[in-house]
Amino acid sequence: MNLKQSVEQKVKASKSASRVLSKASTETKNRALLYMASAIKTKANLIIKANKKDILKAKKLSKAMIDRLTLDKKRINEMADSICAVAKLKDPCGVIDKMWKRRNGLVIGKLRIPIGVIGIIYESRPNVTSDCASLCIKSGNAVILKGGKESINSNLAIYKLLREGLKKAKVPEDSIQMIDSIDRKAVSYLLKLDEYIDLIIPRGGESLIKMVAKESSIPVIKHYKGVCHTYVDCDADLNKALKIVVNAKTQRPGVCNAMETLLVDKKIAKEFLAKAVKKLISLGVEIRGCEKTKKLVKGIKKAKESDWYEEFLDLILSVKIVDNIDDAIVHITKYGSSHSDAIVTEDYDKSLKFLKEVDSTCVYSNASTRFTDGYQFGFGAEIGISTDKIHARGPMALDELTIYKYIIFGNGQVRK
Amino acid sequence: MNLKQSVEQKVKASKSASRVLSKASTETKNRALLYMASAIKTKANLIIKANKKDILKAKKLSKAMIDRLTLDKKRINEMADSICAVAKLKDPCGVIDKMWKRRNGLVIGKLRIPIGVIGIIYESRPNVTSDCASLCIKSGNAVILKGGKESINSNLAIYKLLREGLKKAKVPEDSIQMIDSIDRKAVSYLLKLDEYIDLIIPRGGESLIKMVAKESSIPVIKHYKGVCHTYVDCDADLNKALKIVVNAKTQRPGVCNAMETLLVDKKIAKEFLAKAVKKLISLGVEIRGCEKTKKLVKGIKKAKESDWYEEFLDLILSVKIVDNIDDAIVHITKYGSSHSDAIVTEDYDKSLKFLKEVDSTCVYSNASTRFTDGYQFGFGAEIGISTDKIHARGPMALDELTIYKYIIFGNGQVRK
Repeated sequence: MNLKQSVEQKVKASKSASRVLSKASTETKNRALLYMASAIKTKANLIIKANKKDILKAKKLSKAMIDRLTLDKKRINEMADSICAVAKLKDPCGVIDKMWKRRNGLVIGKLRIPIGVIGIIYESRPNVTSDCASLCIKSGNAVILKGGKESINSNLAIYKLLREGLKKAKVPEDSIQMIDSIDRKAVSYLLKLDEYIDLIIPRGGESLIKMVAKESSIPVIKHYKGVCHTYVDCDADLNKALKIVVNAKTQRPGVCNAMETLLVDKKIAKEFLAKAVKKLISLGVEIRGCEKTKKLVKGIKKAKESDWYEEFLDLILSVKIVDNIDDAIVHITKYGSSHSDAIVTEDYDKSLKFLKEVDSTCVYSNASTRFTDGYQFGFGAEIGISTDKIHARGPMALDELTIYKYIIFGNGQVRK
Repeated sequence: MNLKQSVEQKVKASKSASRVLSKASTETKNRALLYMASAIKTKANLIIKANKKDILKAKKLSKAMIDRLTLDKKRINEMADSICAVAKLKDPCGVIDKMWKRRNGLVIGKLRIPIGVIGIIYESRPNVTSDCASLCIKSGNAVILKGGKESINSNLAIYKLLREGLKKAKVPEDSIQMIDSIDRKAVSYLLKLDEYIDLIIPRGGESLIKMVAKESSIPVIKHYKGVCHTYVDCDADLNKALKIVVNAKTQRPGVCNAMETLLVDKKIAKEFLAKAVKKLISLGVEIRGCEKTKKLVKGIKKAKESDWYEEFLDLILSVKIVDNIDDAIVHITKYGSSHSDAIVTEDYDKSLKFLKEVDSTCVYSNASTRFTDGYQFGFGAEIGISTDKIHARGPMALDELTIYKYIIFGNGQVRK
């Protein structure tokens, strides 16, 4: 069997498994999740052994990459705990969103159901394997996992244990599949199987996501990057603004919801930047300012045009002085990535204007953009973040892994 | 300017217009709709004149096609009335689906907003031009229309009047765009402009839809065909069943929600088919039966394997005798198109089993599949039907032309 056939065979098996899984009770799905967690916990040694192989191969990678790759007893226990936490979440399926009666007596209901078969294409961190698998199982979806080649041994070890859990709970093992070929073509084959796969969620860097979006004939939900802004208005509480700006930039600079550009109203720019830049520099942040900013703050770099589009994912911040809120919104519309943007102001009308007019997935008034996250939103989980315009936006969790069908109760009605 | 540039220019203008339109009040949008309707009504002669050119060209088309193409005063008034009806529907934007408070005091709301720019690619019937445009304007979306070449003059005339209405209401005219080139390449260019267009809805035959889905790098919501089933169970009220079956097949056979295959439980097959086939044949229906059906009913054609997959869109019906409900569900899963399927039974458990296990967009208990329609569902409109697995399924109307964004109200919250 060649690679194409082997990918297709797995995907077809997923489709069959999804038909059984979609009908499984909440109890059965939870039982499967607990067995999956238990297999991971009790056979952690198998994962550690496989992980060592990956690390040995990874010698050429950066220290940060190796750290992301490494699994120890503690991290493996956390993986298992996450699966147990998913088991405790509310089952999103079977809920009837609404139900109404027509004049002819037909009763129409909108019933939440699993999407079907979901493909996850991801990079490096092996815990994505168990995180995504557990969310898909809980929401009744079969999942096809395709991880990066650098963590292939770890992923496979985790995958096998997850399937042990499914088997023990009498849920079809094929509900979790893994494409284990490191041949780049495997992904291309996968992305054309729109007859069997209903949704692709890529998780990783911009280039991976762009490749997936370009090649896929299956619907993709994605976000390319997070060029997040904070606009400090002239009517801001500047102490609040300082706290928010410092948090949004420095609390965890390497993630998509961290701030990349600070926009400051010219009327308070001198006062605010004096404090803010000092504080940010003391925390190791490199500032790249517009012309006006450079005049107010000595010794900083000038921002290039390309900097305004940049997701630094690092302790670097572009700073621009704007005329007013409209000017700020124009900047965000032009350079932003529709991810997360914030205004800091005590002015009611401007707060509402910003929330209305900024066309981003998550728009904040007086809070740090760092809250764009499934856990922080109270969803109890996160399978990814979407900046697309259909199906789901922002943090995606269990609800976003479902869709609806209409169920119609009649009593002999016919159309006139 | 070449064709590619001209398409791109129009699409960019749509994007700009959509930013203004998305902020328009319900009042403004309704005013625009009423002006659009009024322009169509008062200048109907311009449409009729243009329509005559199309009909002159269409001499080679079938009589049915020419009928679909023809616009007279009555049909044009109906078009205008439909626009007025859309003006009366509830604005789906600005609704907050839900709102909740986190322990840290953040208040998170899910706000309904327009999707942005929607492309509609359609065939023949020129009233699609005004129907789709009015639904998009009401839901705050800019729309790019690309109709078939056979109705190009009619479409252009309608389009110009719609834009007159927008202008009068001071809504950007570019909120409605039309790609008026009949060069096949125009569609290909359009389908690659994912930077500006957020969603494509193709309306037409299976080959048009397949082409759009294949070429588009923009998300597409679609349905290929409607191979709809009715399963008459052994516990059915056979009088009810007869009424439903006759309605589903003959009330309007040329549409996607008409029944194409009848499945009959073997325990009541003899009794039911005696009546049903006689009635159907008297209404001009050609029956193609399975082996068992042929033994019970003399003189009918044998169904070929390909007939079970076929959307006849005509007075033709495949009939199969099945062992039981499970056998019926297996058949629907294999041959169906996930559109609309019905069970007729007085048995409570079997009714619920069918509603649960049949993975179609609309699943009926004791009613005709002909009800799969935005108006019949009470949505007041319909822009299309989806059998896809994300964003929207079944009849799509105003709600389905929106998406949400998260608005987050804070008071200085930062992430710990």
